[in-house]
Amino acid sequence: MRLTKLLVPTAKEVPSDATLKSHIFLIRGGFIQPVGGSGLYNFLPLGKIVLEKIKDVIKQELDRAGAQEVMLSFVTPSSLWEQSGRYEKYGKELLRFKDRKDNEFVLGPTHEEMMVNLVRQSVKSYRQLPLNLYQINLKFRDEIRPRFGLMRGREFVMKDGYSFHVDEKDMKREFDLMECTYKKIFERLGLDVRVVEADSGAIGGSGSKEFMVLAKSGEDTIVVCDGCEYGANIEAAKRVPKKQDVGDETDEKEVATPDLKSIDEVSRFFGVDADKCIKVVALKARYDNSTEKIVLFALSGDDDLQETKACSIIGANELVEVDENELEISGLFAGYMGPKSPNENVDVYFDERLAGAKNMICGANKKGYHIQGYTPSRDAVFVDIAEVKEGDECIKCGSKLRHTKGIEVGHIFQLGTRYSEPLGCDFLDSNGRSKPMVMGTYGIGVSRLLAAIIEQKHDEKGCIWSKESAPFEFSIILADPKNEKASLFAENIYKELTQNYSKDVLFDDRTKERFGAKMKDFELMGIPFAIIVGKGVDEGKIELLKRENGLKHNIVFPEFGANSSEIAQLILQISDL
Amino acid sequence: MRLTKLLVPTAKEVPSDATLKSHIFLIRGGFIQPVGGSGLYNFLPLGKIVLEKIKDVIKQELDRAGAQEVMLSFVTPSSLWEQSGRYEKYGKELLRFKDRKDNEFVLGPTHEEMMVNLVRQSVKSYRQLPLNLYQINLKFRDEIRPRFGLMRGREFVMKDGYSFHVDEKDMKREFDLMECTYKKIFERLGLDVRVVEADSGAIGGSGSKEFMVLAKSGEDTIVVCDGCEYGANIEAAKRVPKKQDVGDETDEKEVATPDLKSIDEVSRFFGVDADKCIKVVALKARYDNSTEKIVLFALSGDDDLQETKACSIIGANELVEVDENELEISGLFAGYMGPKSPNENVDVYFDERLAGAKNMICGANKKGYHIQGYTPSRDAVFVDIAEVKEGDECIKCGSKLRHTKGIEVGHIFQLGTRYSEPLGCDFLDSNGRSKPMVMGTYGIGVSRLLAAIIEQKHDEKGCIWSKESAPFEFSIILADPKNEKASLFAENIYKELTQNYSKDVLFDDRTKERFGAKMKDFELMGIPFAIIVGKGVDEGKIELLKRENGLKHNIVFPEFGANSSEIAQLILQISDL
Repeated sequence: MRLTKLLVPTAKEVPSDATLKSHIFLIRGGFIQPVGGSGLYNFLPLGKIVLEKIKDVIKQELDRAGAQEVMLSFVTPSSLWEQSGRYEKYGKELLRFKDRKDNEFVLGPTHEEMMVNLVRQSVKSYRQLPLNLYQINLKFRDEIRPRFGLMRGREFVMKDGYSFHVDEKDMKREFDLMECTYKKIFERLGLDVRVVEADSGAIGGSGSKEFMVLAKSGEDTIVVCDGCEYGANIEAAKRVPKKQDVGDETDEKEVATPDLKSIDEVSRFFGVDADKCIKVVALKARYDNSTEKIVLFALSGDDDLQETKACSIIGANELVEVDENELEISGLFAGYMGPKSPNENVDVYFDERLAGAKNMICGANKKGYHIQGYTPSRDAVFVDIAEVKEGDECIKCGSKLRHTKGIEVGHIFQLGTRYSEPLGCDFLDSNGRSKPMVMGTYGIGVSRLLAAIIEQKHDEKGCIWSKESAPFEFSIILADPKNEKASLFAENIYKELTQNYSKDVLFDDRTKERFGAKMKDFELMGIPFAIIVGKGVDEGKIELLKRENGLKHNIVFPEFGANSSEIAQLILQISDL
Repeated sequence: MRLTKLLVPTAKEVPSDATLKSHIFLIRGGFIQPVGGSGLYNFLPLGKIVLEKIKDVIKQELDRAGAQEVMLSFVTPSSLWEQSGRYEKYGKELLRFKDRKDNEFVLGPTHEEMMVNLVRQSVKSYRQLPLNLYQINLKFRDEIRPRFGLMRGREFVMKDGYSFHVDEKDMKREFDLMECTYKKIFERLGLDVRVVEADSGAIGGSGSKEFMVLAKSGEDTIVVCDGCEYGANIEAAKRVPKKQDVGDETDEKEVATPDLKSIDEVSRFFGVDADKCIKVVALKARYDNSTEKIVLFALSGDDDLQETKACSIIGANELVEVDENELEISGLFAGYMGPKSPNENVDVYFDERLAGAKNMICGANKKGYHIQGYTPSRDAVFVDIAEVKEGDECIKCGSKLRHTKGIEVGHIFQLGTRYSEPLGCDFLDSNGRSKPMVMGTYGIGVSRLLAAIIEQKHDEKGCIWSKESAPFEFSIILADPKNEKASLFAENIYKELTQNYSKDVLFDDRTKERFGAKMKDFELMGIPFAIIVGKGVDEGKIELLKRENGLKHNIVFPEFGANSSEIAQLILQISDL
């Protein structure tokens, strides 16, 4: 492709709302263009080429694994969402609208209901299973704060796949197959990805893994172990609970602690470590059928609540804040809340680390008072609700855990019968009995991958695409278009590489741009190699520049025009493309 | 691909709402699946393969012609539609909705505004022009009566392209290039397409052509000349106006004609042919800025009004019916309307055929009366508003015209500055002057093409895909999977064709289906060739069946297993694929 025939509006200015490098470089490099600053983007020619390359890699690997591509309607009838119960639950990210006849629809943010609807109409027998169907299509989520360019847009391209099985065992086989397939996909795209355990969240189901591109700018905190393969999203991470220093059981007594609200203040007042104090977090839990309840989470004073873990473990749909008035009505006072016999309408959950703890200090549920010598009852509910800290012990190998940042690019999920049951997606087994299909679901953020690849690999000059994601493999840079020898040489190399070797080559044939500007654009666009055709051609010399590390390789040939095929071959050998 | 690994839920039942063969066969053949009967469809694996093959042909030819692929956001801000004036004008097919922050958006039914917005931000100079950008993406039109399967759905896949030029001349060059490109595309897809002149409609602009797949079931009536290449949509067709038999000019007189309302009754009463009577059609014309006006269209009694032509020629946005009450307030009475001096708020347009007509009969604008001896004033407005009838004379060659039916699959359009002006899409010309870009626009109904191909070619048994649109090139039908020799032979041929010749082959390896059922499915799916591997294998014989004409070719080979590569080569030679 000749650059003069390609719309690549590169820019020097940094977009005003952009902070992430991927956001900045994708816009400055002419890959994408924002549509009115509302989380909507146009893909310009260069961005569209990258998107297609990424889609191709995904499709090839999924087809190889036996998955079948379909395309579901993006506009979906809300009746399906009512059947699954998500029409109510999904929240405002689900964009609902009415058509001209007042029928209700949603713009699909995910397509479990639609795929189940497809399969329940087409599949009746165990003989037709297993089945893995996917699509690479538009999605829409009405994000409250779309940001970071393609990282968190509202309209985006997603690969969503759904598998259907006769039993749990076969679903787990497919789940493992998809894990392998995803690893291959991300590896081919040149990404350093860590597979981590993830929260199962509102989508329901039993086991779930996320594929995290390790990058400082990642929105997700992940917990990794350097001693073994263990990794988990902070929202799902587990640890070996640190032993509490159990003192003797003493009698409880109420102590006046006016104006002592924080754990710090309390532990200093009593002259004990923070882990001898109990921290209590009050939240309102929302359950199905719009029921709500105030819930107290009790933790060791040096731990923090992990809300997502907590929400999952108590089976709530969401946890929201409670205001002080509401707390006081239930006999709870900020700074003085304790797990000991609160109002009977309030549930109390203890972090598992407090099992066996004795002689603790906690709020007295009375303004200005704490209790000293408190011991949780053995009948209390102990669950894993604390956020894993750096330095905690790995549950797999006991080594120290640490935090790092990641960008979620894939998610695989053991769904079970969460959707097949309410939507009646049944099959007849080999004994003629009707059963709900067991499902898995598998997502990849396709447009987000453009951003993730850049977040992981870039420098101050611009993008650095990997081999299989790059819009072009080579850029031929003609330093001085007035140099006829060089122009002819560049033309020949261009024809040779594109026609005889089917390489994707961008030929920077612009006549009005200086060499320096061409190099800057090459660096910004991040094409893996530049073939620089300058005045050296006169002496039989061109340069091959590797974008990733800036290394230059001189290619010297005996005389000009001798054999462009041999030179092309040499370029391919050196670049190993 | 093995059929046992592919979800192809073929069915015997005809969908209850389906009348068109394409609708019936696409559903029965397992290509698509309706989503709740509302003009929304899922593409099943087989349909998705065909869709991709069609997209590939389109993309290859457009790229070859120098067009560049982009992808625009499907959800588009309504502000752009307000700038072009279409937010008001477009009508209810434009699906409007609000997001969670109450901002207004539309689901793009076409993307002129979005593409102009893209270009006005990226292109500043004549040096960057011409430019032809296209996308193959989802569209949504909230059709009042979605029907005929993919033919008139609400969500559909369209290729929409837009070109930008420094002047009219260059735009026309691109317009002609696109006409050639479209012809190549449709030819490659095996379609018999007629290029016809089309109405420019509400989209505005000066010249427009449609690509019509000739098919009895077509929704569009097209006028064709058998003497020359002329063809036009009935909404744009022209003719040589038939000469009126001009009698002498006589004095006008009012004649009482109680209860004579139709042209038939009036002509019989006066004892003249229908073409001596004037037919008047009253409609309400809606213009910009919400102004409305009653308009009378006067035609020869044997002609009919062509509303689309009429609407375009008087520059209205739409023509709607007027009720009798409203007519009477303006002094007009159904059955007795005439072109002679009606209320001054009413405009009168005469069909060009009435220029020079004399001594006519027309309504008197008085209940129960007609005028005899009426002669239109020479200063009246004569325009081309009559519908072309079969037998009318071709304006190009004078031969007789006839009607036929077509399915619109493409539309190319000279837009001019209809969008670039209101949206400020300007460029600096070589003299540094700012000018609006001159545009063309080019559409192809991609998902509709699946239906159009079948409408043009099918038989009572099912689909007949053309070579480049077929989901697979061959289907290997293993007649009896228990026959081990035949199974092995079929396996070998399958591997040979797919691995060594990269052919798309469907291997019907089902073990529970009988040969007859397999043949029925093959015919329904419409794959070009079946390689039937039956018990003849024992005697060194297989059959190659051509779906289109049912012709069978025996392939005889000396001994089983000799050389499956040679047999594969023979199959390819005979099938010429």
